[in-house]
Amino acid sequence: MGMMTGKEYIESLRALNHEVYFMGKKIKNVIDEPMFQPHIHAAAMIYQLAHKPEYEEVMTATSHLTGEKINRFTHIHQSIDDLVKKVRMMRLLGQKTGTCFQRCVGLDGLCAVYVTTYDMDQKHGTNYHERFKKWLVEVQKHDWMPSGAMTDARGDRSLRPSQQKNKDAYLHIKERTEEGIIVSGVKAHITGAINSHEILTMPTRTMGEGDKDYALSFAVPSNTKGVTFVFSRQTNDTRRLDSPLDAGNPKYGIVGGEAVILFKDVFVPWERVFMAGEYDFTTELVETFAGYHRSNYGGCKVGLADIVIGGSGWIAEAHGIGTASHIIDKLTEMIAMSETCWSCTLACSYEGYKTPSGAYHIHPLLANVVKLNITRMTYEWMRLAQDIAGGKIITLPSEKDLDNPESGSLVEACFTGKEGYPTRDIIKMLRLIENMSVGAGLPEAMHGAGSPAAQKIMIARRGGIDKKVELAKTVAGIKEDKLFEEIVGKKEQNHWKEVKNHIDGKKVQIY
Amino acid sequence: MGMMTGKEYIESLRALNHEVYFMGKKIKNVIDEPMFQPHIHAAAMIYQLAHKPEYEEVMTATSHLTGEKINRFTHIHQSIDDLVKKVRMMRLLGQKTGTCFQRCVGLDGLCAVYVTTYDMDQKHGTNYHERFKKWLVEVQKHDWMPSGAMTDARGDRSLRPSQQKNKDAYLHIKERTEEGIIVSGVKAHITGAINSHEILTMPTRTMGEGDKDYALSFAVPSNTKGVTFVFSRQTNDTRRLDSPLDAGNPKYGIVGGEAVILFKDVFVPWERVFMAGEYDFTTELVETFAGYHRSNYGGCKVGLADIVIGGSGWIAEAHGIGTASHIIDKLTEMIAMSETCWSCTLACSYEGYKTPSGAYHIHPLLANVVKLNITRMTYEWMRLAQDIAGGKIITLPSEKDLDNPESGSLVEACFTGKEGYPTRDIIKMLRLIENMSVGAGLPEAMHGAGSPAAQKIMIARRGGIDKKVELAKTVAGIKEDKLFEEIVGKKEQNHWKEVKNHIDGKKVQIY
Amino acid sequence: MGMMTGKEYIESLRALNHEVYFMGKKIKNVIDEPMFQPHIHAAAMIYQLAHKPEYEEVMTATSHLTGEKINRFTHIHQSIDDLVKKVRMMRLLGQKTGTCFQRCVGLDGLCAVYVTTYDMDQKHGTNYHERFKKWLVEVQKHDWMPSGAMTDARGDRSLRPSQQKNKDAYLHIKERTEEGIIVSGVKAHITGAINSHEILTMPTRTMGEGDKDYALSFAVPSNTKGVTFVFSRQTNDTRRLDSPLDAGNPKYGIVGGEAVILFKDVFVPWERVFMAGEYDFTTELVETFAGYHRSNYGGCKVGLADIVIGGSGWIAEAHGIGTASHIIDKLTEMIAMSETCWSCTLACSYEGYKTPSGAYHIHPLLANVVKLNITRMTYEWMRLAQDIAGGKIITLPSEKDLDNPESGSLVEACFTGKEGYPTRDIIKMLRLIENMSVGAGLPEAMHGAGSPAAQKIMIARRGGIDKKVELAKTVAGIKEDKLFEEIVGKKEQNHWKEVKNHIDGKKVQIY
Amino acid sequence: MGMMTGKEYIESLRALNHEVYFMGKKIKNVIDEPMFQPHIHAAAMIYQLAHKPEYEEVMTATSHLTGEKINRFTHIHQSIDDLVKKVRMMRLLGQKTGTCFQRCVGLDGLCAVYVTTYDMDQKHGTNYHERFKKWLVEVQKHDWMPSGAMTDARGDRSLRPSQQKNKDAYLHIKERTEEGIIVSGVKAHITGAINSHEILTMPTRTMGEGDKDYALSFAVPSNTKGVTFVFSRQTNDTRRLDSPLDAGNPKYGIVGGEAVILFKDVFVPWERVFMAGEYDFTTELVETFAGYHRSNYGGCKVGLADIVIGGSGWIAEAHGIGTASHIIDKLTEMIAMSETCWSCTLACSYEGYKTPSGAYHIHPLLANVVKLNITRMTYEWMRLAQDIAGGKIITLPSEKDLDNPESGSLVEACFTGKEGYPTRDIIKMLRLIENMSVGAGLPEAMHGAGSPAAQKIMIARRGGIDKKVELAKTVAGIKEDKLFEEIVGKKEQNHWKEVKNHIDGKKVQIY
Repeated sequence: MGMMTGKEYIESLRALNHEVYFMGKKIKNVIDEPMFQPHIHAAAMIYQLAHKPEYEEVMTATSHLTGEKINRFTHIHQSIDDLVKKVRMMRLLGQKTGTCFQRCVGLDGLCAVYVTTYDMDQKHGTNYHERFKKWLVEVQKHDWMPSGAMTDARGDRSLRPSQQKNKDAYLHIKERTEEGIIVSGVKAHITGAINSHEILTMPTRTMGEGDKDYALSFAVPSNTKGVTFVFSRQTNDTRRLDSPLDAGNPKYGIVGGEAVILFKDVFVPWERVFMAGEYDFTTELVETFAGYHRSNYGGCKVGLADIVIGGSGWIAEAHGIGTASHIIDKLTEMIAMSETCWSCTLACSYEGYKTPSGAYHIHPLLANVVKLNITRMTYEWMRLAQDIAGGKIITLPSEKDLDNPESGSLVEACFTGKEGYPTRDIIKMLRLIENMSVGAGLPEAMHGAGSPAAQKIMIARRGGIDKKVELAKTVAGIKEDKLFEEIVGKKEQNHWKEVKNHIDGKKVQIY
Repeated sequence: MGMMTGKEYIESLRALNHEVYFMGKKIKNVIDEPMFQPHIHAAAMIYQLAHKPEYEEVMTATSHLTGEKINRFTHIHQSIDDLVKKVRMMRLLGQKTGTCFQRCVGLDGLCAVYVTTYDMDQKHGTNYHERFKKWLVEVQKHDWMPSGAMTDARGDRSLRPSQQKNKDAYLHIKERTEEGIIVSGVKAHITGAINSHEILTMPTRTMGEGDKDYALSFAVPSNTKGVTFVFSRQTNDTRRLDSPLDAGNPKYGIVGGEAVILFKDVFVPWERVFMAGEYDFTTELVETFAGYHRSNYGGCKVGLADIVIGGSGWIAEAHGIGTASHIIDKLTEMIAMSETCWSCTLACSYEGYKTPSGAYHIHPLLANVVKLNITRMTYEWMRLAQDIAGGKIITLPSEKDLDNPESGSLVEACFTGKEGYPTRDIIKMLRLIENMSVGAGLPEAMHGAGSPAAQKIMIARRGGIDKKVELAKTVAGIKEDKLFEEIVGKKEQNHWKEVKNHIDGKKVQIY
Repeated sequence: MGMMTGKEYIESLRALNHEVYFMGKKIKNVIDEPMFQPHIHAAAMIYQLAHKPEYEEVMTATSHLTGEKINRFTHIHQSIDDLVKKVRMMRLLGQKTGTCFQRCVGLDGLCAVYVTTYDMDQKHGTNYHERFKKWLVEVQKHDWMPSGAMTDARGDRSLRPSQQKNKDAYLHIKERTEEGIIVSGVKAHITGAINSHEILTMPTRTMGEGDKDYALSFAVPSNTKGVTFVFSRQTNDTRRLDSPLDAGNPKYGIVGGEAVILFKDVFVPWERVFMAGEYDFTTELVETFAGYHRSNYGGCKVGLADIVIGGSGWIAEAHGIGTASHIIDKLTEMIAMSETCWSCTLACSYEGYKTPSGAYHIHPLLANVVKLNITRMTYEWMRLAQDIAGGKIITLPSEKDLDNPESGSLVEACFTGKEGYPTRDIIKMLRLIENMSVGAGLPEAMHGAGSPAAQKIMIARRGGIDKKVELAKTVAGIKEDKLFEEIVGKKEQNHWKEVKNHIDGKKVQIY
Repeated sequence: MGMMTGKEYIESLRALNHEVYFMGKKIKNVIDEPMFQPHIHAAAMIYQLAHKPEYEEVMTATSHLTGEKINRFTHIHQSIDDLVKKVRMMRLLGQKTGTCFQRCVGLDGLCAVYVTTYDMDQKHGTNYHERFKKWLVEVQKHDWMPSGAMTDARGDRSLRPSQQKNKDAYLHIKERTEEGIIVSGVKAHITGAINSHEILTMPTRTMGEGDKDYALSFAVPSNTKGVTFVFSRQTNDTRRLDSPLDAGNPKYGIVGGEAVILFKDVFVPWERVFMAGEYDFTTELVETFAGYHRSNYGGCKVGLADIVIGGSGWIAEAHGIGTASHIIDKLTEMIAMSETCWSCTLACSYEGYKTPSGAYHIHPLLANVVKLNITRMTYEWMRLAQDIAGGKIITLPSEKDLDNPESGSLVEACFTGKEGYPTRDIIKMLRLIENMSVGAGLPEAMHGAGSPAAQKIMIARRGGIDKKVELAKTVAGIKEDKLFEEIVGKKEQNHWKEVKNHIDGKKVQIY
């Protein structure tokens, strides 16, 4: 036991033997399936980098529970420094994989459940927090990757969970026994689910008293009886079966790797249940999770931006237009936007605070600002990447056409650039930009960690508008401005009288 | 002969028997290949609508050469009314297919070569215009779709065509004989190429005296000896082989359908050559074509926007959030942007002018404004579509998973919405939005008809900055303002003197 | 009688002798007051240009009532051509004055009341239209400038007019007599009011049955008993009293020249009353007026943009940075935005339609798009103007400091630029850009003709979302697509079966 | 001695007796001149707050030179914590004054000269640093406000300083004597100059060897012989002479208060000279200053935004539309943008570093990102403020019209709102929003601390594009990816071979 390497992580998945479907077929073993491998490699990068001395500080931490050195992805943040290192780790991993490495959802789930169970126990006298810590120690010891399963299917969004016609639209408790609970329903779009060892569920929204059976959090191993995964289709997913060149980023794949998780009468023993009916803590759990998770996007997506900016710059060079003023201007705009997002995520980490549980949380207002910016700026920088890279990214023929003995060389000649830039390298880069900018990455940047509407609600709520109104009223002169009176040494109205006299030509010494 | 129907168009392609490759394999017959069919259907829609009485006015015209009723896609615009109807036709076709219908490139090529050959003959005493008209009559009679082959591969863009190491980077004349010319090289990213009857080539940029062999325009049938097509990969292209549902728009496909066209020692008889060395007319040809083509984007892309806006609105309804204020606001923004682009294309059509050839051309400055707006606003409205539709568009499982007898019904339940909205209909719409917003459509909107940088050069050149400087100098008082002096009835300086006197309290009657 | 010249217009105001206040003082005669003169000059430009042969076509029209040649500002649009010429006139006047020329509000009022009274009479059997035409003939004969007085004070906007505590928040009928009506209340922010011969009032919003006394339109001369004007303060207004150079555009002034009009028991004879209680036509009147008025902004503001673009370009030259790539890029963006707005206004004019009254109206959806774009793009191009011009525009000393014998020459030296550009010319241009970009122009572009929220309501209402939903459903395959079945020559489901068979390797000839 | 209060600061200016002109007149004493008082009050707020226990931590520091408690505006940052507190102080002061408090230019000058003189001495063996520290101790002891005089007039910007025809376009050394230097020339647009005790000059740009006499930094008291100040005009400046209500923010005034400083043969003793010819350190001095100064804008302007947001929210309430969804959305957007800028400035402070001199400097890339965002987002939030506040902000009559016994009450009635919101309070707030959004504030946000073009050059230079290219090449597969090979446990090409075999149906166990 202890921290796994990338290869050990891959091997650990072989043993899982969980129920996974893709395109109607059952997948025997996820690691032998080329469709899944890039996603697995991206997650494996997390495990691999943790063993590199140059990244040790950002990639690892010391468990506050066991004192052991652990992968930071299983660590509960114990300081501002931990929060800052977390986002540095996110950017680093984005830079190394060019895609989503999936494990952050579980990490944020760990931290959010940690914080919330503590507060829940304080109020309700429950012992969820201790249960959770026991499971957490196992996660840290085995270096498990738990998927963070929050989003429910939701059905008709104008109805509450308990009002849905389709009961499975939300994951819910069907029965409570002495040993545990029996749950059914669906969690949708769960990132990294098919290559995670465990599933950690959380409610997707605030629940009311009528939705008690939906106020639910627990952990089960991925291979639990009754749990089925259905892997989603992604943009250009089967291209990796056609040729590595066509795929764009064949090593680490396309963002996401989401799956639907079906729960059919799944039994969960009480020691793995962390919320079961405490609807009054669903808001805290959801918002705590969302806060952590939204802050990450200024890390990982900026790491991706680094690649897209570098790739665009290189392509411009390869096309012979690297020094054109409009190219430099576009690259500069891309850098400015990505560093803006980076600044936001740094700020919301540096301005974090200690929760009653002892864990540190990010600054909630600023975390929502991070994510709202990402939902717009990512689109902008990808638009600029496409502008620089050219229409080629969507009109490249298949690698098989390059290999065609009859016409391949002519086809290849079609994509030559400046001398010194091999044509297949140019194509590799164009395909990478296609992969990153024309695809699932953008909707993921939009909706991962909640939609912009969700962020705006939080920003409105946490923006401090009332305090701002007071500031404005004071400066406007609607409210008494004591500081002004101290400065001028008299009542405000007297001051204006003296000013008026002075203007009218009466010799008044105002001060 | 005469106007073909959609079905006749498809049949006409069967006879072509041209040399087409896709993913390394030679395609026997393009119409039997499911990979190509959606593109063919989209083009067939043009043929089909021309036979509908309700669309007759926009879809057909009367040939000024033969007096016959023809498909407007083979018509040389004879009036402002023709220009306006052309863009109405574009929007209509966008609304009917949700994708690129490909035939406008050829249409714009016809018009641009028509205009330029006329002017060329006037200066050089050549007879290109008559040759071209003869071929044009054939195009109209047979209702041929010619692809417009402009973009060269271009290699190192810091070098001129004749300076390229790879000679095939630009299509060029290898030899001139009494019967015609022999040409080689490559045209890249040619829209609709594999389902066009003819190829009409044009130079891709302004040529200098040293680039005479590259100043080249001609037409050949698609099945000419030495001509090979290599079809490009598109976003999610092979999904249509997996299931219609997965594909998004299985009927009309994904935008584009571009192909590389390889010319290897292709012989072109003189009667089909429309420019061969007249480098001094390459600017006119390129700019005339670009003007026409850029104006179209405010038609077709707005037709696509209509679908995306309608689809987003419907999805919001189906999810139970159709009346949320932020949804209505986003739909309104999408409409405002799309109607802005539509207004620009209407304006550049209404403000068109008659060229010496008798053909009408659009307003060049405004046409470039159309396209520049499209390169930005399309991204914006697609972003909003993704915002409304939700992350689901990139996490939908395959149709095969819905059909899976074991878990299919549970998976399907996962995507239910409001009552009255069948789940598979919801999925169809989500896949359509995915198809239109996550894919080739955006880079096509960016680079089709030239990149934003190209539009900005034209806008700077045609923007009339000098005239604006004079206006500013007159109002600022740097230049004499005669109108002001007429209004006040005296010299400007006298006016200010009187004003000064008045202010100083001298009773002056200023007027 | 007949069309006045600029000078005649000015003289005609001398006779008015209406009740005008500014900064607490009664103004004897508006034309002798330097504070008002620039506004008067701007309106006078309209009169002056109408006598210039080169502008005759855009500036004048033939009255459909009298057959006389009239200033277009008193003309009811009789054709699409009239609508287009109107916006060309707006741009021209913007280019000549660099500011608001005020008379368009009245023009749009004339047209809107003309259209609405016709429809009102049709329904209610009233004879408002004939009354109105009689007054209109007088307006045309005397070449009067009527101010268009629409906006009421509105008080608490969550309450209807009849619910307001302050009765004067909306102009209303206090009493009806046989001879006419007696009205009281306030019209706020009325453009050009103090230099108009007449006042034409209109309701500011849709009225309900309870608001009958507020459903009110009439015309009175500006010097009617009980009518008082209070002129507003504008940005930097008194600078024109300090020095022409400091003022920026001393000849034509700052945008607007708005005034509050107070009505205190004003008697209006029936022949000048055009609506008195017909609340069911308030929507039509307001929307017709708004449609016309919103379309103008793509004319006048683009004329202003022409000056700001030219001025910025000239300043860059004068500073020695005229050829810097970022300067050219900014100017190009400014041109692209202004021509976008121009295109929108052209389009909404060209796509106009004939109303039952015979008058032509613009395209309502596109007119709202014009104005919404103006509320954003004006800010953008002014921002870029400030970017190019430099911080100097807000740190220039007074002309009096330049004239100071002690330090003036040193101060002046401070603002030298490239050789050949006199320093005071540079200062004139900087002050003009200050005047146009740092001031009332921007909020006017925002709120004139209604706020963005008003435009968005209209766009949502007129955007045709239902039709778009049908288009999307057809392409998505939710609704039957007959055209597709015609193209493929079979039922859609049969087509997919055949495609499936083909993919599965069964030799199927699909067509 | 020691920290002054606001009132003491004002008194200290009385003694200065420096040479100040405004609008052509010599001003006897700046503190008795109502035109200058608001600027003086804003600066006085800095002095006043330093004595408030609740702000002690952000407003004061301990001098590293004397160990005394000093106003933070004279402190050299000794830690990251100092940098963060500095921007907190900026935001606080923006919130208290609603305008520019002017003293930060001098502060950044102190820090930049401190850092650069240290490095200069290291290289050149000069003793500028010690000289500077001596003067700095005086500054701290007397709590002086030095103006930071950087911007030169610059003349023709395509020419170097030494090439200018007008020698005074750049401040320069005319003569060097044993006692000191004699300087002449002009510094333009210097913030807070007329109410500063001292002037600290710095070069405005990188100087070359030929510009040695322009590579110049020194400090002189404001009342030094040969120094003349000419105060600039600001938007609506003289309104404060008309009435406090008309002015908007009569207490603290309009942003800026810039002045031209004329130097005519001014003698500077060597002990006050900190650079005299060391052109090779001009880049460091300029960039160090710019870095500090650009970072501030995310503090002060966000403080201003707080007021504008609060004021807009209050006005919406007062108008009865406070809960309209579009109002809430606009306020939320304003908050999101302002907190984005705030995050950027926090991040560039938290990510600061220690210079060789011991002083801490901010993160240069991120500081430029701060300022570039400010040059855009400020315009956006002010646009939204104007949207919410309404056109009223530019059509309010003068306070004198409200006080007019004849019509005043009717005029006042015109601006009533919801019950409970006194009309004059509404007007006060509208005038404040006018003051802040329609005026000098925006160009100041654009050009203060350098124009956007300057920021973009720095961002391009510091953006690390080369490193990003390497990241992209590694992920694209152009460069060897050792981490990938470690993860998969074999060479990359072998991996793809095995994948291919697996896809081709050969049973290969890939891991």
